[in-house]
Amino acid sequence: MQAVAKKLDEQDCLASFREQFCLPEGVIYLDGNSLGPLPVAAKQRAVEVVTQQWGQDLITSWNKHAWIDLPQQCGEQIAPLIGAAPGQVICCDSISVNLFKVLSGAIRMQPGRRKVMTTSDNFPTDIYTIEGLSEQLGEDRCELVLVDEESIEAMLDESIAVLLLTQVNFRSGRLLDMKEITRTAHAKGILVVWDLAHSAGALPVHLDAHEADFAVGCTYKYLNGGPGAPAFIYVAKRHQQQFKQPVSGWMGHASPFTFGSAYAPAAGVKQNLSGTPAVIAMSVLEAALSVWKDVDILQVRQKSMAMGEFFLECLRVLELDSVLPCVSPSAAKERGSQLAFRHEHAYAICQAWIEAGVVADFRAPDRLRVGFAPLYISFQAVWEACEKLKCLIEEQRYLEARFRLQQTVT
Amino acid sequence: MQAVAKKLDEQDCLASFREQFCLPEGVIYLDGNSLGPLPVAAKQRAVEVVTQQWGQDLITSWNKHAWIDLPQQCGEQIAPLIGAAPGQVICCDSISVNLFKVLSGAIRMQPGRRKVMTTSDNFPTDIYTIEGLSEQLGEDRCELVLVDEESIEAMLDESIAVLLLTQVNFRSGRLLDMKEITRTAHAKGILVVWDLAHSAGALPVHLDAHEADFAVGCTYKYLNGGPGAPAFIYVAKRHQQQFKQPVSGWMGHASPFTFGSAYAPAAGVKQNLSGTPAVIAMSVLEAALSVWKDVDILQVRQKSMAMGEFFLECLRVLELDSVLPCVSPSAAKERGSQLAFRHEHAYAICQAWIEAGVVADFRAPDRLRVGFAPLYISFQAVWEACEKLKCLIEEQRYLEARFRLQQTVT
Repeated sequence: MQAVAKKLDEQDCLASFREQFCLPEGVIYLDGNSLGPLPVAAKQRAVEVVTQQWGQDLITSWNKHAWIDLPQQCGEQIAPLIGAAPGQVICCDSISVNLFKVLSGAIRMQPGRRKVMTTSDNFPTDIYTIEGLSEQLGEDRCELVLVDEESIEAMLDESIAVLLLTQVNFRSGRLLDMKEITRTAHAKGILVVWDLAHSAGALPVHLDAHEADFAVGCTYKYLNGGPGAPAFIYVAKRHQQQFKQPVSGWMGHASPFTFGSAYAPAAGVKQNLSGTPAVIAMSVLEAALSVWKDVDILQVRQKSMAMGEFFLECLRVLELDSVLPCVSPSAAKERGSQLAFRHEHAYAICQAWIEAGVVADFRAPDRLRVGFAPLYISFQAVWEACEKLKCLIEEQRYLEARFRLQQTVT
Repeated sequence: MQAVAKKLDEQDCLASFREQFCLPEGVIYLDGNSLGPLPVAAKQRAVEVVTQQWGQDLITSWNKHAWIDLPQQCGEQIAPLIGAAPGQVICCDSISVNLFKVLSGAIRMQPGRRKVMTTSDNFPTDIYTIEGLSEQLGEDRCELVLVDEESIEAMLDESIAVLLLTQVNFRSGRLLDMKEITRTAHAKGILVVWDLAHSAGALPVHLDAHEADFAVGCTYKYLNGGPGAPAFIYVAKRHQQQFKQPVSGWMGHASPFTFGSAYAPAAGVKQNLSGTPAVIAMSVLEAALSVWKDVDILQVRQKSMAMGEFFLECLRVLELDSVLPCVSPSAAKERGSQLAFRHEHAYAICQAWIEAGVVADFRAPDRLRVGFAPLYISFQAVWEACEKLKCLIEEQRYLEARFRLQQTVT
């Protein structure tokens, strides 16, 4: 497999992007689906925004360095990666806060309907946000409905106001069919919110073409914006007049610097801003996003699918496929850019693998998650990671790691 | 006045703190009430959190560098500055988002009451948040009531659910009596939310002693946490069981890493977390807050009051007091750490002053705002700033600046 890997790397048209990242020596990083690594441009920007802009230019930087434009600027850099025409994406807050805004606004647009449906194995925050909104508004205005991922379309009916789906399942990596589901939902008068946490930067997304209504997403995974980097929000142009989110803050006002006492939402997607933008984080994100201006997202998808298949083949060759059964969809086109494996001691295996220099992650209760970020991972690194996995499983090194258990976060 | 300033500086027991800040050469910074300058510790931390923690240790930093504890750690560092015992303050999101959480939760605790009262010249976000909530819940569940700052106590009655006040007015600098107002409000069964944007780090605040119910505040002004740094939220211990905020995210869950589908709020103030913390910003903030561990906030208040009085005396000596009438309260103890002056061409004067090396700011429609941050401003600098102001007004240099108008943000 080493020779195959070498060949694949030689043919890799994305190989040169690796130079744009700071990666630690001797580490194979298969966790970009959780926290992307540091882009060189982001490292430089962090010093500049803190030392020069904040330190030297102080308050004048709002104009001098266009801090005030960062939310829109970052949004417009993300837009082409998720298939959005200009004027529909803006960066702000966290996914959780943005979900709250979008769901609140969407349900208001559906008088007479109160159900908000999502999948029972969606990422917890997506479910919790609906619960929180339901508790706030009352069940007569917002009711959480959970459905199995397999039966989403079958369960759609005219009683549902909003359908919230994460395009790529955070545990299994399963990729939902945005086009088909959105079409089916629309036929029943349902608005669809897409959570792109595991999609943006991992695969081509077509929000406009597939007529998505709203979307949210994070920038610290495949977009490499940094730990806890600001999230984004998409509101389709056709809804921007009618949509109204409740977390009204001064930065979402049509004219923030008149300091008037009556709220008038800014036109377009900008009304989604609430407080003062997180300048340092957003400036770092803006630099991180510059990597993408030369990236063909179709090539990213091709390499990502090839890498997933190659990883599975390595496991078969190493006779690990029965030890670590894959619980992701078997067809590459039905997966995002990650694979999940079930093992009783998945957490311990993950820890032992990290100690051996391969970073992946664990998801309760028993999943080992392996992410493939095509901009900086090589096929040879994937093969080496598999060899290390084989070794630690044969030597049962993970049993020892079990005694040093400590919960890991992403 | 030069000699007086020199003497005051010699007696200044806070003078040595100036070394802990990076300040640009040749600039007198009287805008720390808008954006605090860069602490040396924050500058170092920015490089460390980006280059070492994110860049080298990647995802393992959540444990290795305790990223997961940053919201609570920052909160506990702020707590003593605002008179809060441990377990009541946490850092997250922006003031706007935190106001939304706190107001939503507070109004739920007041069944049968729907009015949320605030002052008509409060900072816009405070008013807008109530408007947003009112529009979301309906006027039958949340109704905005605006009142003049002069008649707050007279207007309190049993129909009011929540009173939201900013302790120090952002335009005038007027300081409200937290103790008296809270007591009067409580006597009518009203819950009080204090916005400490212009108080935290500027003067002693006694949330616990004055029995405040809730508070929010920002960290990028007197606390020098950096542009758009995360805000904080205070929930009094006695309310923590009953209080429930609606923006339920995974980080506010009692057990985030079990990834369960039913939301169970974390105990205490931690339920106010929603999304993944803004690690870079919060780590920088944590370092910035380290300045405060050796600061006596009473000394800060004394110097701040002395500085305000000294500034006013300088204006009198320079015969500027009638040109720039002060619109802040005349008694130092009734002001926060800033002064406001009215002038038809306040914006142009502010711009010309910045060009002369003195940074203050402008607030629409006609206010020049001057802030005194005692940790890094000297009396001699204040005198020098006044001399420059005299000079530019005498030479009518601001008239020329008017033609280069550009809206400034804070």
